[in-house]
Amino acid sequence: MGGCSSQSCHRCFFEYETERMIVVKSKVVGSVFRLIQFLILFYVIGYVCVVQKSYQETDSVISSVTTKVKGTGFTNTSDLGGRVWDVADYNIPPQGESSFFVLTNMIVTPNQTQSTCPEVSSMFSNRITLLKKGIQTGLCMNYSETVKTCEVLSWCPLEIDINLPEHALLVAAEDFTVLIKNSVTYPKFNFHKRNILPDVNSSYLKQCEFNRKTDPDCPIFRLKDMVSEAEEDFQTMATRGGVLGIMIDWNCDLDWPEHYCGPKYSFRRLDNKIPENNVAPGYNFRFAKYYKTTDGRETRTLIKAYGIRFDVIVFGTAGKFNMVPTIVNVGAALTFLSLVSSVKWSHLQNTHYL
Amino acid sequence: MGGCSSQSCHRCFFEYETERMIVVKSKVVGSVFRLIQFLILFYVIGYVCVVQKSYQETDSVISSVTTKVKGTGFTNTSDLGGRVWDVADYNIPPQGESSFFVLTNMIVTPNQTQSTCPEVSSMFSNRITLLKKGIQTGLCMNYSETVKTCEVLSWCPLEIDINLPEHALLVAAEDFTVLIKNSVTYPKFNFHKRNILPDVNSSYLKQCEFNRKTDPDCPIFRLKDMVSEAEEDFQTMATRGGVLGIMIDWNCDLDWPEHYCGPKYSFRRLDNKIPENNVAPGYNFRFAKYYKTTDGRETRTLIKAYGIRFDVIVFGTAGKFNMVPTIVNVGAALTFLSLVSSVKWSHLQNTHYL
Amino acid sequence: MGGCSSQSCHRCFFEYETERMIVVKSKVVGSVFRLIQFLILFYVIGYVCVVQKSYQETDSVISSVTTKVKGTGFTNTSDLGGRVWDVADYNIPPQGESSFFVLTNMIVTPNQTQSTCPEVSSMFSNRITLLKKGIQTGLCMNYSETVKTCEVLSWCPLEIDINLPEHALLVAAEDFTVLIKNSVTYPKFNFHKRNILPDVNSSYLKQCEFNRKTDPDCPIFRLKDMVSEAEEDFQTMATRGGVLGIMIDWNCDLDWPEHYCGPKYSFRRLDNKIPENNVAPGYNFRFAKYYKTTDGRETRTLIKAYGIRFDVIVFGTAGKFNMVPTIVNVGAALTFLSLVSSVKWSHLQNTHYL
Repeated sequence: MGGCSSQSCHRCFFEYETERMIVVKSKVVGSVFRLIQFLILFYVIGYVCVVQKSYQETDSVISSVTTKVKGTGFTNTSDLGGRVWDVADYNIPPQGESSFFVLTNMIVTPNQTQSTCPEVSSMFSNRITLLKKGIQTGLCMNYSETVKTCEVLSWCPLEIDINLPEHALLVAAEDFTVLIKNSVTYPKFNFHKRNILPDVNSSYLKQCEFNRKTDPDCPIFRLKDMVSEAEEDFQTMATRGGVLGIMIDWNCDLDWPEHYCGPKYSFRRLDNKIPENNVAPGYNFRFAKYYKTTDGRETRTLIKAYGIRFDVIVFGTAGKFNMVPTIVNVGAALTFLSLVSSVKWSHLQNTHYL
Repeated sequence: MGGCSSQSCHRCFFEYETERMIVVKSKVVGSVFRLIQFLILFYVIGYVCVVQKSYQETDSVISSVTTKVKGTGFTNTSDLGGRVWDVADYNIPPQGESSFFVLTNMIVTPNQTQSTCPEVSSMFSNRITLLKKGIQTGLCMNYSETVKTCEVLSWCPLEIDINLPEHALLVAAEDFTVLIKNSVTYPKFNFHKRNILPDVNSSYLKQCEFNRKTDPDCPIFRLKDMVSEAEEDFQTMATRGGVLGIMIDWNCDLDWPEHYCGPKYSFRRLDNKIPENNVAPGYNFRFAKYYKTTDGRETRTLIKAYGIRFDVIVFGTAGKFNMVPTIVNVGAALTFLSLVSSVKWSHLQNTHYL
Repeated sequence: MGGCSSQSCHRCFFEYETERMIVVKSKVVGSVFRLIQFLILFYVIGYVCVVQKSYQETDSVISSVTTKVKGTGFTNTSDLGGRVWDVADYNIPPQGESSFFVLTNMIVTPNQTQSTCPEVSSMFSNRITLLKKGIQTGLCMNYSETVKTCEVLSWCPLEIDINLPEHALLVAAEDFTVLIKNSVTYPKFNFHKRNILPDVNSSYLKQCEFNRKTDPDCPIFRLKDMVSEAEEDFQTMATRGGVLGIMIDWNCDLDWPEHYCGPKYSFRRLDNKIPENNVAPGYNFRFAKYYKTTDGRETRTLIKAYGIRFDVIVFGTAGKFNMVPTIVNVGAALTFLSLVSSVKWSHLQNTHYL
């Protein structure tokens, strides 16, 4: 545009070049041409706008999660006797973060003190390797009548963690419930929302329980239901431990206020349960409770805790109309539209029709 | 382009098709045409480049946070007597993660042991529902002179959590301070930065306190100030507990090194404080300290802890010039520019001016 | 397009306008024209497709991490005597989250009780400022023969945290190992993967150790190796504490299933080690173990814990072919291609060649 010579710049500014047009009257060429135009328009309207919503600017969710587990269980073991477990006992860490652990099985080693004792031989399981759980003193002694091992300085007696109970001790854990409070923000759009929806009232929340069909908005989940939705067996998972992901999907289209923009829950096991290549299968960790005897010596109860860790994972993208992606997408489509008219057909018609 | 016949491909490679141009000299058409061109250029330069910075490639922040609370408080209760609280007492978890909790109010149930006791009736609050906190043994007995409840096996005596102190016990918590260290990375651009800016010296940091106007770069925050910025009352929030978000916005334009690329702090309450539909309002959790008596029996002090959980939430996007989005955006604008010249005007001129 | 008059709309639908083409035979113009076409094509194919992969739709990773530390250490201090440390002692929090702490140095203050004692003067370090660690009672008394300080109500005796051991107590920590299990999801593409790759077998995992050259897929890391890769000295870092980032990069191109889509590990120190402007350098926190004496009084052991916090930070973007970005990018390139042919050259040729 604008073939301006320098001596007449003002006049030239209002000059405008155009092209001579020749109208071709051909049903065949016209039909194909209109079809392609239609396909491009269909792509723009159908795919870009409706399916992909490419006219929108997007933002990623930022989120805060609070959890609260409820329920009481009872175990009867030789180590601990009959014992009631409440939330302060089995919920670790206690402060209700987005990742919480429910203890369901354990190996308890009470009354450990800093002293020396014979190393535990893993002959129990017919392997010879020693379990390195202390510092060798250099002495060796009889571990049992038949086995001789070396003495170690450690928390004694040593933990024998080979005989894990075959069934989860805290069977009742499957009926525990957890209340999940989730607050999300899309900072770019200054949008805030909570998973406890405003139209849900307090009395409903006092007694409801999440069910995908009947109660999809209730934020109280029975542990067994979540494990079942992930297509796992609760008692199997409770015995050796595992990690369960509670995924909350907050994908939202903010252009339509009447549109549902709320949490969509799904559940998936996150640790590897496949038997091959599973070093340390399941999920467990060791922690200790420390005591002092009357003479001031420190003693501890070591607990190897097996259980299910629940990770609340919040993700999502919100989209809202924005000029830039709209212009970009419509521009790209128009380029194709104009190329269809100019590039290909001009050649076709030059050769055959003119 | 390139209507080549196969027999003369080399010559055809240098052939080039062009169009006959006709220069239209009309002040009206020219003016409108230039105006539209100007609007498109204005959109490209003003909106796409300056406002939206669409010529940039973007990356999301990854972050690591360390927190350290300071302060000492004093409480005087019938259960515990006069007692000083330091950071090891009220800060849970202690290890200074991005989410930390300051205990401000509590219900303490000391000297619990595994035994049997009458179930607590919630007649206290004129409701009849029993608080299920143990396993029923089948026996029933007198809870008080007027109320008869059933015996449970549990941690006894049971917690009576109905009478929460009306005012937060740890009043001094509002003057506690927290040092937040935040280190961010934009991996795509290999950009690293900390919220303690390089031009801030050590002596300033020893005594400063964040203030939006006078000390916006100080990473030490008084708890009360943060709650006030979120438009909440500290003592009200401290009584029943709550969750406060400390948002750190790291949006950066990395094309301009002299531009400020630093943390922008804001504060927002994340839990639901609206009275309706608030199941378990506020924020609290239960934890226990375990002891052993001289005869080896386990006993515990159960604490229902109310307080403020502070969630440090880091978010942001960095942008830097990149060819692809630039080409895409300029291309889209040029499409419109060229369409303005070719599509609409050609028709107008075909009909009226030629 | 479509100069249709309203009376014959059906016929006009099949009309198609085209332009008269003039083939210019000039080696110079043709060469330059082809060169520019080639450069644009080169940009599209080389840069957009191969380097930037702009034909792809992208998604951000969501991830779950489990960690398990192994190792036993021994310390010999005047406070605690000879003592063996196992994972339950030094790993805080114990439950194997994405952020875990290994205690390597400490200041222990045993047998603290709620009582009154003289405030600690920081004359130890030749500064006069008092360490505010309690509530002043109003009385003043002799702290030592030469120094007189005021009495405070606090956990007494007060912690004297000025004399940190110059060498990390838990020297053996450098040989501890950590198993990191990381499970990632790209929800948009329904893609799941773990950092323990399927072709790795269990016996290999039992004895392997990460090494960038020889064992890049082993998910077991020696603590010292990680610190060395971050170009830090383990014992220096262990003495005053620090934060080490274990970055796992999951950038994946999902269009090529045979392509490697796996974790890429890197390590970087996240806290500020530069001596200037380092308020509270290193990383430490205080926690306490609570005991009860035979007469029911509470006593505690306060531990100021120094050590290395390891933050496992997972990030990454997956890309997969998608129509919209492809159309947008090809469209933008075609715009430039068509502008090259129409705008500039038409003017050039109008003036000089026709």
